[in-house]
Amino acid sequence: MKVYEFRGFPNPARVRIALAEKGLLDEVEFVHVDVPGGEHKKSAFLAKNPKGTVPVLELDDGTTISECTAITEYLDHVRDEPKLTGRSAKERAVIHMMQRRAEAGVLDAVGSYFQNATKALGPDITGYQCSEWGNHQREQALAGMRYLNDVLKNRAFLAGDDFSVADITEFAGLAFADFVKIEVPQDCTNLKEWNERVATRPSVAGLA
Amino acid sequence: MKVYEFRGFPNPARVRIALAEKGLLDEVEFVHVDVPGGEHKKSAFLAKNPKGTVPVLELDDGTTISECTAITEYLDHVRDEPKLTGRSAKERAVIHMMQRRAEAGVLDAVGSYFQNATKALGPDITGYQCSEWGNHQREQALAGMRYLNDVLKNRAFLAGDDFSVADITEFAGLAFADFVKIEVPQDCTNLKEWNERVATRPSVAGLA
Repeated sequence: MKVYEFRGFPNPARVRIALAEKGLLDEVEFVHVDVPGGEHKKSAFLAKNPKGTVPVLELDDGTTISECTAITEYLDHVRDEPKLTGRSAKERAVIHMMQRRAEAGVLDAVGSYFQNATKALGPDITGYQCSEWGNHQREQALAGMRYLNDVLKNRAFLAGDDFSVADITEFAGLAFADFVKIEVPQDCTNLKEWNERVATRPSVAGLA
Repeated sequence: MKVYEFRGFPNPARVRIALAEKGLLDEVEFVHVDVPGGEHKKSAFLAKNPKGTVPVLELDDGTTISECTAITEYLDHVRDEPKLTGRSAKERAVIHMMQRRAEAGVLDAVGSYFQNATKALGPDITGYQCSEWGNHQREQALAGMRYLNDVLKNRAFLAGDDFSVADITEFAGLAFADFVKIEVPQDCTNLKEWNERVATRPSVAGLA
């Protein structure tokens, strides 16, 4: 299988972490997409993903999968251990809930701030911007961090005792926040401790 | 199990359709939440869902699950047939991808238009609004419909030959669009035909 990506970007990082956790890194051919140069908006790439975003997983039969949660769903079912999306109905539900909250509440909010209220990838690639909305999303991202900080008061990871895709999404969200200079609030000590701990996992430390 | 909801709203409808498809309607006690009266923003409900949104699934052990995709994930794993989220890794990936596109591209875009560019639920409940963003999201919803219309050119349902959670999400999105008077573009004939066909399913027709 192939993964089309721009290394270092938040969403490709999610897939790399999942691949490393699953022990599947060696089974993937990574293909560099020149996002700053606009390659993701050209027809060859749009044929693989009409939304024009990275990463894209291409299976050996030519099927293309985009959207990170769909890619991690694939990886988690093509190899069984360690499970990143849960086993029982209840585990799956809690992990999906927390993943969505990390995604909508932090990662996507930070992305919307970046897209709307900063220079983003420059005028040629960025397109429509609404700075008022972008700045509001900055506040939403901080609120999302405070919520997840509360969740981590009694848990080692976002969905319970075990590392899951919810943690991958949130780690990417905090890395993106750091890149765009949205600081985790000082009093979010649980979230900061969690972030430092996740950063030491081989799957994450190996990203650099 | 219990489902806290406001009947007729788009997200509660998603869960009702999934329950009906799975044959689980009779196993659920529905609890009415007075959303127009602001009950979902009061402490008793926020203890069940800090995000203050319906629906919420409460399991018999007291676990509360919100976010529709997490609830449908639960329902689809607590009873096996008919499968709404796929079986193989590839099926699951394609369904998750299309679900996310229906959600982000249409349902959430329509919701953002409603929230930001209309009177929504009134000033006491609605909170922050950014009308410029809301009107942009209206355009995004139309673009999302056009994309899904293309997808349906060669498929009976959004993720292939079988009805899935992706179809549930999109049906709720089009119903919400209809409610806020965002019309499906006339030339989206595949999407219109799909919408009429899905509306005749017992799980959907039974909503009224």
